[in-house]
Amino acid sequence: MEVEKEAKISLVGAGPGAKDLITLRGMKVLQSADVILHDALISNDLLQELRSDIPKIYIGKRCGKHSHTQEEINELMVAYALQYGHVVRLKGGDPFVFGRANEEIAYAEAFGISVHVVPGISSSLAVPTGQGIPMTKRGVSSSFWVMTATMKDGSFSQDLEYASRSSTTMVVLMGIRKLVQIVDEVNQYRGSLTPMAVIQNGTLGNEQCIVATLGTIKDYVGRISIDMPGIIVIGDVVAEHPAFFEEEVQRVLYSGY
Amino acid sequence: MEVEKEAKISLVGAGPGAKDLITLRGMKVLQSADVILHDALISNDLLQELRSDIPKIYIGKRCGKHSHTQEEINELMVAYALQYGHVVRLKGGDPFVFGRANEEIAYAEAFGISVHVVPGISSSLAVPTGQGIPMTKRGVSSSFWVMTATMKDGSFSQDLEYASRSSTTMVVLMGIRKLVQIVDEVNQYRGSLTPMAVIQNGTLGNEQCIVATLGTIKDYVGRISIDMPGIIVIGDVVAEHPAFFEEEVQRVLYSGY
Repeated sequence: MEVEKEAKISLVGAGPGAKDLITLRGMKVLQSADVILHDALISNDLLQELRSDIPKIYIGKRCGKHSHTQEEINELMVAYALQYGHVVRLKGGDPFVFGRANEEIAYAEAFGISVHVVPGISSSLAVPTGQGIPMTKRGVSSSFWVMTATMKDGSFSQDLEYASRSSTTMVVLMGIRKLVQIVDEVNQYRGSLTPMAVIQNGTLGNEQCIVATLGTIKDYVGRISIDMPGIIVIGDVVAEHPAFFEEEVQRVLYSGY
Repeated sequence: MEVEKEAKISLVGAGPGAKDLITLRGMKVLQSADVILHDALISNDLLQELRSDIPKIYIGKRCGKHSHTQEEINELMVAYALQYGHVVRLKGGDPFVFGRANEEIAYAEAFGISVHVVPGISSSLAVPTGQGIPMTKRGVSSSFWVMTATMKDGSFSQDLEYASRSSTTMVVLMGIRKLVQIVDEVNQYRGSLTPMAVIQNGTLGNEQCIVATLGTIKDYVGRISIDMPGIIVIGDVVAEHPAFFEEEVQRVLYSGY
């Protein structure tokens, strides 16, 4: 008779996409999993590295596959833990950065199931930096602000104005569909020559990075896949991208706003 | 006669401290190093994991040891690459987050030496989340702002006001010595019941986390090591810390500001 395994859950951050950007700890925890529940952001490369003798099940919210609500995800996670033992919930990026980890922890703990979290590299940082755009640079930007642009009702958060008025490096997630409106809003407070970038499929083979300015980005919208997630970066640090000066924008011009 | 090795440099992020929070890629690059130059933030545990047959040299800016200027660091890095071959510059956190990676890249490239960057988990995120404080939480905070509080001349950046006025999760680095002034500044815009935390020695064995509010943190300053770096987190997400409600602050009270 099989010994019954203790139900437990690990929320593991897989990092930004490439399979070797998970941590040593994350990989070790995966090796002790009885079942792996992964979201849409996990690359096939990473999944293929994992043990083939345990179930690897997609539960997530997009990707054209069946879409689960957060409630369904919570329930599945607990049901699998009670059935299999150690559930590893493998999430893109970091579980505590737009990862809804707290809701999953609270739900599991209500069943007396302990939850352990392993951090991962947040895509919000690693995707821009992987393009050579630093989050901070001495004398240029001493802070970065990672945000979603819109609230539940689709309107812009007041925070978008505060961010635009400040000198911070803005990293806007889930904003691709509202790109033009976001640019118009930021452009009220930052000059048209402010460098910006739009990155899609970050750290994967088909990564695309468009580098422009608040004033010129509209010329490139045809090259952006509106149905794919992407990261918008706005701030002078974007001028560090190797492609920026090929766009014939002169750095000297935007020291004045 | 020894074959001459090609001079090259890798900037590798070691993550927030614990030795198994480096990435698989970072560890692999370390294994191909001819010499490792590490900063003060790298734990001895991690250094002991690394190859013993190559030089591991401290070059950094604090820790009571000899302190190097950024110029000296740049020069040493290039000199070692020309002498040894593959230099791995191992940095705490992520090279592109307050890591001055751009300056080191520009310097090395001026010598025709190629530089490769491997991201790491930024301590600015992983230290708070390791305490159970999420960066974002649905319905509570949809953004986080990582910043240094003061400018070169010691005065507060205008950005501190914008951040305080917004609803973002504030993560303030290098602010321990000015903690009381920072709290007074933020308190002009956010209520006294706003939760906050001060974390020192993050992810290490002697980690300390003080959880309080903008109104009560001053009662705890005696427990903070003013000479050690630390991370200040301000925002309602701090109420997720398990110790928060032990402080007898009622969450219902601060929904009104």
